[in-house]
Amino acid sequence: MKKRYSEELNHLKETVLRMGGLVEKMTHQAVQALVERKREKFSEVTEMEKQVNRLHMDIDEIALGMIALRQPTATDLRFITAAMKINTDLERIGDQAINIVEQAEKLVSVPPVKPLIDIPRMAEIAEEMLKAALDAFVQGNVELAYRTIERDDAVDQLKDQVFRELLTFMMADASTIARSMDLILVSRHLERIADHATNICEDVIFMVKGKDVRHQDPPG
Amino acid sequence: MKKRYSEELNHLKETVLRMGGLVEKMTHQAVQALVERKREKFSEVTEMEKQVNRLHMDIDEIALGMIALRQPTATDLRFITAAMKINTDLERIGDQAINIVEQAEKLVSVPPVKPLIDIPRMAEIAEEMLKAALDAFVQGNVELAYRTIERDDAVDQLKDQVFRELLTFMMADASTIARSMDLILVSRHLERIADHATNICEDVIFMVKGKDVRHQDPPG
Repeated sequence: MKKRYSEELNHLKETVLRMGGLVEKMTHQAVQALVERKREKFSEVTEMEKQVNRLHMDIDEIALGMIALRQPTATDLRFITAAMKINTDLERIGDQAINIVEQAEKLVSVPPVKPLIDIPRMAEIAEEMLKAALDAFVQGNVELAYRTIERDDAVDQLKDQVFRELLTFMMADASTIARSMDLILVSRHLERIADHATNICEDVIFMVKGKDVRHQDPPG
Repeated sequence: MKKRYSEELNHLKETVLRMGGLVEKMTHQAVQALVERKREKFSEVTEMEKQVNRLHMDIDEIALGMIALRQPTATDLRFITAAMKINTDLERIGDQAINIVEQAEKLVSVPPVKPLIDIPRMAEIAEEMLKAALDAFVQGNVELAYRTIERDDAVDQLKDQVFRELLTFMMADASTIARSMDLILVSRHLERIADHATNICEDVIFMVKGKDVRHQDPPG
């Protein structure tokens, strides 16, 4: 027996949210494992990625099936294609969390180069952005999407700050170079997670307003 | 008067190819500008990005319009959604080319840290991968898509090589740290361009075989 159309739409929405929750948790755990220097947490992140990959395929399948069989209206079609685009961004956030784990595994096997302050702060903002982006998606909340996009600047500033600080460390003491590089790369991965959250917000705005804001400034 | 359906499909394909050609050129020019230390080439890349952003929006509009109005068959629907996914990857390749330009602008204002050999080689493979991925798309050539995916390993190896080499430079002479970092980041951007080419190949395989290969190993 076929599910009702509205149930299918709901199922799609919920699956996207489940995937979003997972990659948010992956990001959080990856950075926590680095901060607390706990190796056992790394494998939890790797385990979660398997579920994310499964959901990644499921979402495309559900979405394509709906487009093919349901001939959705303009509004629903924008919702379904937004779900597909968001799906891609969420999967790549999962990839970035794995990249952080790879860097972090190297970092916890050597003495810390400096207190990590800015890195957990970056992670915090990136996670909040992701959460808000998904809220904006389920609520169709354009205003929240715009506000969330604006937070990306704070992440970029922290990234630059991490870079400048670590450059100073490296200059002063060549023995910190390899470790500093790994930390810089962690900050780049977090920056990209925030970028993906921004992409999701742009897709939400397009979904709601049917207007492409991806290559223009937000209204002042 | 409405265009015929087959003409619309062709128009979509050609627009994707035009965008692909542009981002390939952007990548090439960005690295050439770095190699030849020619500032004037940087602005050419920035100019091209404007066209790419325009095409990025056009392609989504054409594709969504076709899905909404034409009720495409399963095969055509897979083609159209593949075009939309490829569109996203191409736009991000353009972003990476811009990132390379930003790094390169810093690099050409200081003496070179070392001959660039591996970086142009990385760019060459990444460009070839992109070209092959787009060929695979227009021909629906799964075999070419698989072959192209395999080349990603070579890019990763070169990236690791660049990293190790520059780490040695930085360790030996702290005055090279900032420049070495910029070069390492250029190599990361090229790696990501190759990753996007890989994504495109995976979309082609899904398009042709209706089979998701994104989270499994290619057949041996």
